[in-house]
Amino acid sequence: MCSPRVMATVQEAMSRRRFLGRVGAAGAAAALGTAPPGAAGSAQEAATPVANPMATPQALASPVATGGFSRVQDLSHVITPAFPVFPGFRSLQVTNQAAVEADGFYANDVAFAEHTGTHMDAPAHFVAGGATAERLPADRLVAPLVVIDIGERAAGDPDAQLTPDDVLAWEARYGPLPAGAFVAMHSGWETRLVEPARYFNADAAGALHFPGVHPDTATLLVGERDIVGLGVDTLSLDFGAATSFDTHLAVLGAGKYGLENVAGLAAVPPSGATIVVGGPKHEGASGGPTRAFALF
Amino acid sequence: MCSPRVMATVQEAMSRRRFLGRVGAAGAAAALGTAPPGAAGSAQEAATPVANPMATPQALASPVATGGFSRVQDLSHVITPAFPVFPGFRSLQVTNQAAVEADGFYANDVAFAEHTGTHMDAPAHFVAGGATAERLPADRLVAPLVVIDIGERAAGDPDAQLTPDDVLAWEARYGPLPAGAFVAMHSGWETRLVEPARYFNADAAGALHFPGVHPDTATLLVGERDIVGLGVDTLSLDFGAATSFDTHLAVLGAGKYGLENVAGLAAVPPSGATIVVGGPKHEGASGGPTRAFALF
Repeated sequence: MCSPRVMATVQEAMSRRRFLGRVGAAGAAAALGTAPPGAAGSAQEAATPVANPMATPQALASPVATGGFSRVQDLSHVITPAFPVFPGFRSLQVTNQAAVEADGFYANDVAFAEHTGTHMDAPAHFVAGGATAERLPADRLVAPLVVIDIGERAAGDPDAQLTPDDVLAWEARYGPLPAGAFVAMHSGWETRLVEPARYFNADAAGALHFPGVHPDTATLLVGERDIVGLGVDTLSLDFGAATSFDTHLAVLGAGKYGLENVAGLAAVPPSGATIVVGGPKHEGASGGPTRAFALF
Repeated sequence: MCSPRVMATVQEAMSRRRFLGRVGAAGAAAALGTAPPGAAGSAQEAATPVANPMATPQALASPVATGGFSRVQDLSHVITPAFPVFPGFRSLQVTNQAAVEADGFYANDVAFAEHTGTHMDAPAHFVAGGATAERLPADRLVAPLVVIDIGERAAGDPDAQLTPDDVLAWEARYGPLPAGAFVAMHSGWETRLVEPARYFNADAAGALHFPGVHPDTATLLVGERDIVGLGVDTLSLDFGAATSFDTHLAVLGAGKYGLENVAGLAAVPPSGATIVVGGPKHEGASGGPTRAFALF
């Protein structure tokens, strides 16, 4: 076989070629104003049953979404006991169990409601017999990330919702939603987290007012497009003033998952990023704190 | 601007070109028996201070590790109350709080010791003043994944350790460790999880016997190579029979993180994959359950 030195030289040359090739491809896509495009029919790969996800790698729903990347954006907030949770849920509790000085190591016990921080809603959260979070196939957790900005409208109206027209406007600009996409509503609401009361934004009667996704949009996305999940940068897929959970029911009822309190979307391009959703793996999870990243 | 139909046609054509291009590049690398190679000096990008990781995307430590991928392998075990935890730590507890039939939704409270399931050890776990898990820069959590197999040796000797020679043998075959790599020991130990007592593998005196990483290897990896973290498919970075935590101290003391109870490594190529480490984001985390994926 080749000596390590020869191998290293070959690697260095290949590295440079591949890296430049990647940058070139990204540049071409940017010049065209297009996303990494979706391939019709490629989502069928994901439908293949996988007996043991621990042993069998899964083909991505949309392999064309997986071009190179050079940036990583954290999409998860730091969770503190003060982080807003939807009314009725328990906040984070951290109980110290050991410290370096006294015990030689530092460790805590942790307790929380599943729907805390940046977190997943699994289908089972609203659907009897729906998939729990730990059972979602891994290939559904790596997807083309579509960011739809409603920040301008949300700044003037806390009851703003992501509408079907917003989706169509995104498509008119960036092309059809990629197959197996993850769609994120970006309202800019996370800037209110410095003052949790402004994040809840309750009125005098106690009703909450924050942006969400209109049920008609959910119906469009699960019925006429091919998404794996839906995210919001607010407390709930349904807007704060909702009196029912129609968007949750449409999305989770279709076997898709939600992500709530998504962070950092302001730094992610509207089209072309890949989301990696580090959802919870405890047994029977209705959802749970999730570490997500955008790669682009 | 172009009509959606024109855009769709352009996208479809580009999709096919990019996808085939990616497959072609991967094939060439496989034919040469090389990993996506590391580029000397590229790790310097990661040293740039980032004031607000929520708003500022971070350049990857090793952008050359980020070529295309089409497969995703889950590296995290399902966590159950019966999942083995290192002696002294509390197991997972899940307490149901709501059910679809009675309440319209399903939700649980969850409690565990941070060092449960497939989990991260942050530098702070063993180092006073070390970084807690939620403060590790996101770019350290996406890295070239190096898998070093010691399965044959571990099958005959539960006290087997990943040695410096194992690292050198890997390099002789696949080339120098990429800059900013994540190195994983694959001992095949996870097949014992069906019977937790075999995973602990205690002797009559109560001493544990499972594979780990030799402290000299840790010293080599943090001193003479450039790694972001170190993983094992057993309960601890230090092998079970260790009477001190020298490997932990070397790795965490150098500001790197550990991953324990890593799953699914049998399906990951020794070289060429990218790991995405969905570490915990609760405040003050000494570590915590982590959803990790290999992309390749």
